Amino acid sequence: MKRTVNCGVLRAADAGKNVVLNGWVHRKRDHGGISFINLRDRYGITQVVVDQDSPSDLVSTAEELRNEYCIAVEGIVRTRPETMVNPDMETGEVEVVVKKLVILSRCEVLPFQIDEESEAKEELRLKYRYLDLRSGGMQRRIKLRNDVMFAVREWMIEHGFFEIETPTFIKSTPEGARDYLVPSRLYPGKFYALPQSPQLYKQLLMVSGFDKYFQIARCYRDEDARGDRQPEFTQIDIEMSFVSRDDVLSMTEGLFQHVFRKTLGVNLPEQFRRLTYDDALEIYGTDKPDLRFDIQLQDFAAFVENSDFQAFKDALAQGAAEQSAAALKGVTISGGGVKALVVPGKADYSRKQIEELEAHAKIYKAKGLAWMKVAGSAANPILEGGISKFFGDRATEITSGLGAKPGDLILIVADSRRRTANIALGAVRSKIGKDLGLCDPDRFEFAWIVDFPMFEFNEEENRWEAAHHMFSWPQEKYHATLEQDPGAVKGDLYDLVLNGYELASGSIRIHDPELQKRIFSIVGFNPIEAEKKFGFLIEAFKYGAPPHGGIAPGLDRLIMLMAGETSIKEVIAFPKNSFAVSPMDECPSEVDQKQLDELHLSIRYPQEGN
Amino acid sequence: MKRTVNCGVLRAADAGKNVVLNGWVHRKRDHGGISFINLRDRYGITQVVVDQDSPSDLVSTAEELRNEYCIAVEGIVRTRPETMVNPDMETGEVEVVVKKLVILSRCEVLPFQIDEESEAKEELRLKYRYLDLRSGGMQRRIKLRNDVMFAVREWMIEHGFFEIETPTFIKSTPEGARDYLVPSRLYPGKFYALPQSPQLYKQLLMVSGFDKYFQIARCYRDEDARGDRQPEFTQIDIEMSFVSRDDVLSMTEGLFQHVFRKTLGVNLPEQFRRLTYDDALEIYGTDKPDLRFDIQLQDFAAFVENSDFQAFKDALAQGAAEQSAAALKGVTISGGGVKALVVPGKADYSRKQIEELEAHAKIYKAKGLAWMKVAGSAANPILEGGISKFFGDRATEITSGLGAKPGDLILIVADSRRRTANIALGAVRSKIGKDLGLCDPDRFEFAWIVDFPMFEFNEEENRWEAAHHMFSWPQEKYHATLEQDPGAVKGDLYDLVLNGYELASGSIRIHDPELQKRIFSIVGFNPIEAEKKFGFLIEAFKYGAPPHGGIAPGLDRLIMLMAGETSIKEVIAFPKNSFAVSPMDECPSEVDQKQLDELHLSIRYPQEGN
Repeated sequence: MKRTVNCGVLRAADAGKNVVLNGWVHRKRDHGGISFINLRDRYGITQVVVDQDSPSDLVSTAEELRNEYCIAVEGIVRTRPETMVNPDMETGEVEVVVKKLVILSRCEVLPFQIDEESEAKEELRLKYRYLDLRSGGMQRRIKLRNDVMFAVREWMIEHGFFEIETPTFIKSTPEGARDYLVPSRLYPGKFYALPQSPQLYKQLLMVSGFDKYFQIARCYRDEDARGDRQPEFTQIDIEMSFVSRDDVLSMTEGLFQHVFRKTLGVNLPEQFRRLTYDDALEIYGTDKPDLRFDIQLQDFAAFVENSDFQAFKDALAQGAAEQSAAALKGVTISGGGVKALVVPGKADYSRKQIEELEAHAKIYKAKGLAWMKVAGSAANPILEGGISKFFGDRATEITSGLGAKPGDLILIVADSRRRTANIALGAVRSKIGKDLGLCDPDRFEFAWIVDFPMFEFNEEENRWEAAHHMFSWPQEKYHATLEQDPGAVKGDLYDLVLNGYELASGSIRIHDPELQKRIFSIVGFNPIEAEKKFGFLIEAFKYGAPPHGGIAPGLDRLIMLMAGETSIKEVIAFPKNSFAVSPMDECPSEVDQKQLDELHLSIRYPQEGN
Repeated sequence: MKRTVNCGVLRAADAGKNVVLNGWVHRKRDHGGISFINLRDRYGITQVVVDQDSPSDLVSTAEELRNEYCIAVEGIVRTRPETMVNPDMETGEVEVVVKKLVILSRCEVLPFQIDEESEAKEELRLKYRYLDLRSGGMQRRIKLRNDVMFAVREWMIEHGFFEIETPTFIKSTPEGARDYLVPSRLYPGKFYALPQSPQLYKQLLMVSGFDKYFQIARCYRDEDARGDRQPEFTQIDIEMSFVSRDDVLSMTEGLFQHVFRKTLGVNLPEQFRRLTYDDALEIYGTDKPDLRFDIQLQDFAAFVENSDFQAFKDALAQGAAEQSAAALKGVTISGGGVKALVVPGKADYSRKQIEELEAHAKIYKAKGLAWMKVAGSAANPILEGGISKFFGDRATEITSGLGAKPGDLILIVADSRRRTANIALGAVRSKIGKDLGLCDPDRFEFAWIVDFPMFEFNEEENRWEAAHHMFSWPQEKYHATLEQDPGAVKGDLYDLVLNGYELASGSIRIHDPELQKRIFSIVGFNPIEAEKKFGFLIEAFKYGAPPHGGIAPGLDRLIMLMAGETSIKEVIAFPKNSFAVSPMDECPSEVDQKQLDELHLSIRYPQEGN
């Protein structure tokens, strides 16, 4: 009873054929002594019918069937009467009249009906992941993931990249999160680390002359699962030699154009928008702006000077003072800022709605969220409510300056740190985008964020640290002054942003051992420490390392966004904790937790000996 | 100075063009004031020339160059004088006359010259792996690996398989070797195991209705590296629903036909040879015969009965007695055996050579290796040397029975266990194949070994264990008598053998929870233990599991054989211990080894909680 066709292919033209189908009982209904069974496999659903006048053993087997029984049927294809044609089913013109029916495997009472799993608790969906994966939604998303992976490989191979596997058992690469460690049984006291990315290995492949490398690579971070993050995740890891930033950017654009066209039939623009990091913060208050809606942050400072609103004036004055003080210490910080957001047509927001927005702004360290509503007419605008008594006399000037129309809501954040004002108002912007339904899941708005700062000052530890990672190339014009003014140094770093998510991060890398040593020194490694941790990289750079750079789009997040989902769990076959809610064995003995903690704290990138 | 062309493309037709090349100084020679530089990149080598009359700064930069400097040159393509054309180089008709030369990165004194690494010690090659990888050989093999991986994916996708990623952090799957364990920092006292294969996950994907799955999957075994094995390795993991054995076999044949044709231009036969496990042992003395040479094991027992050679007679008699005794205990074992091997034309083997073969046979538990040489003529053969005095009077009968000709060497192993005689003589056969150079690395001889036994009796532990693994389907005709005579049960198990290596192993799986429980019970799990370890699998089978089966070709071994190599290290970019011979940090603290040992001994497939 092996299938001759699958459940997705039969059409009216097949009428009269003898076929065998294998699949699952998706739904079954009995009507006037006839059994109608929707038989499902990966390819589709076909209606199979056990007629009233069938032999009694066939009828009684059909009676036994329950949802999700796995069965084989043999029968004749016939067209359905016109009134019974189901235009919503690809096979809806036909049905198969069963001559023979074999139960391949039975099914116990289901914890949830297939394709109704959205009503099931997530816990149940994870426990019975194998049933959850039978749903049309999960099948489509896992297929999309397969399609995207293959489209990526197709394009990369076509463009001369080699897929090269890098090890899972490595010396640790410093990427910001904790490493998973694997103790060795054969080499007592020694450990491997699992890679947070193949970063150093792909750089070594460039030193090896492989020129163009990629890998759809599994990576690991010892941290808890969240909506958009899993402790093991997959990235499209890419590295190229003899390239500058723009080569990497246009390569990436070509890749995504191919992937979106091939798998979703979506045409992306030939070039993606490019924003500097500074501009992104000024205009959207974030380095990962959602560009599916066009609300921008605007500078309100010009209206503050001649106003009587002391809070705004104080923020600017204090910012200027702090900036001067920092400058004396050679540290570059942003001054004060007053930034405004015009929300079109939302002058009808209630006080409660605005308070919710303010609470959101405060999460991002805003001291408050000021507001005014625009009333009156275009010719004669009026500012009302909130802080309007301080600015009402300049309604025309302000509304025309901000491009606000009657019916609009104006939101303002002031802070002695311009960066704080931007980020808090940027968070408000994102919330408004979601609240107002401006984030169409079927739209894909890409943007490059470029010219990131190389270093950030960690005020707690009173030292500079790498904003991205220590292997990125500082732009040439800063090479002479790296040590004097780290805060001013921009790197050849770039992020690819899609619909408000960071989809990829990359940079041109350092290939000069001396420059690499200077970077290690700026972020506070003494030479002995640097040699101990990264000696093998510095050593490799001494043997004719080529200029190189790369990028690493995250696959999970990409599929999540392409599928219009908001949780990574929806696009991974077996996310963390699938099955884990079912009873699991405990470890018979426990590793000394204190010892493990110490090891993590003092990790020195161990690796097994020879 | 970004390249306009790579180092592999210039031809005579390009003469006159202005080009920029980037690459490495492969070799450099100075001749009559002219510098000839072989500039190399991944794509080829181009000769670039700094002429005598070049500007002095160009000449002095050229003088500075040493092997493996990474440089950029700009210049004009010109055809070489006819006497200087190098037909061995693809770009040998031309050279580039340098106008501008930039050193991108310098190179220290090399530990070995690129493309002469075969003379370097393996230790040095591993320490400077990034230099080793620059060699033509490693570049070709890593490219072959890339090509094969893509060809696999191309064929699998074309044939409706989805590539689905399974987790790295799992409950342990019992596969025979030790698991690597990853202690959790977030869930004290809990551990993950790393997969030895995605076995159970791919079976769950079949339960999930994915129908056809594959994955080029990283797998892990906590054991030491060997020539053909690494602690982390890659397999082409495949599983299909609603199939029987022959479906999996012909699918695999189609896959390998595509891969070999596409990447090596080699046409494989439409169907691969098939041998039962029993026949393979009888004819080749191994379940992974090298079929590149046609020497077969033959039965010598018929000549023993009427001879005076007591050792052979004893072996057969003792074997028969042991077999009867075992049968009384319900255990099936092979009787005694006397097996012969005819080595064509090797009657000239010295006593020392034969002693070497005997020593080899003894490794495989032979008690000795008897021999005779065939002399005389075809019409009148004579047996000489060794044990010929016992058989010399029957020379014609024996040589014609074995198909031995004058000049041939006959080797014989007798044992009270037929299996031992077969295996020892099979090992001799393999050694002879290698010694006589019969193993052409450019020939690819595939064979299927089928009808493996399901269970092997572990005499030490006095219990049955799974010969392959516990999830394989016993052939239907044995279902009624599994428990009565486990030793007789054949499973729907199959191995794919290539040139004497096991390339792939697979089986039709059990999908019936009751049958699965019986297997667990036969191999000695009590029901509570079985439920604890595999409850989630049994549970999944209760929800309409489809019949399914699969196979898992090993990628590393495949590439090794395709490249004609004998070590896996030659086909992995970063094998275990690359870099490890350079000084490495020790762990600052040691995990209690005794604790770890206990954990490994009593492992109960732990996993992190929710």
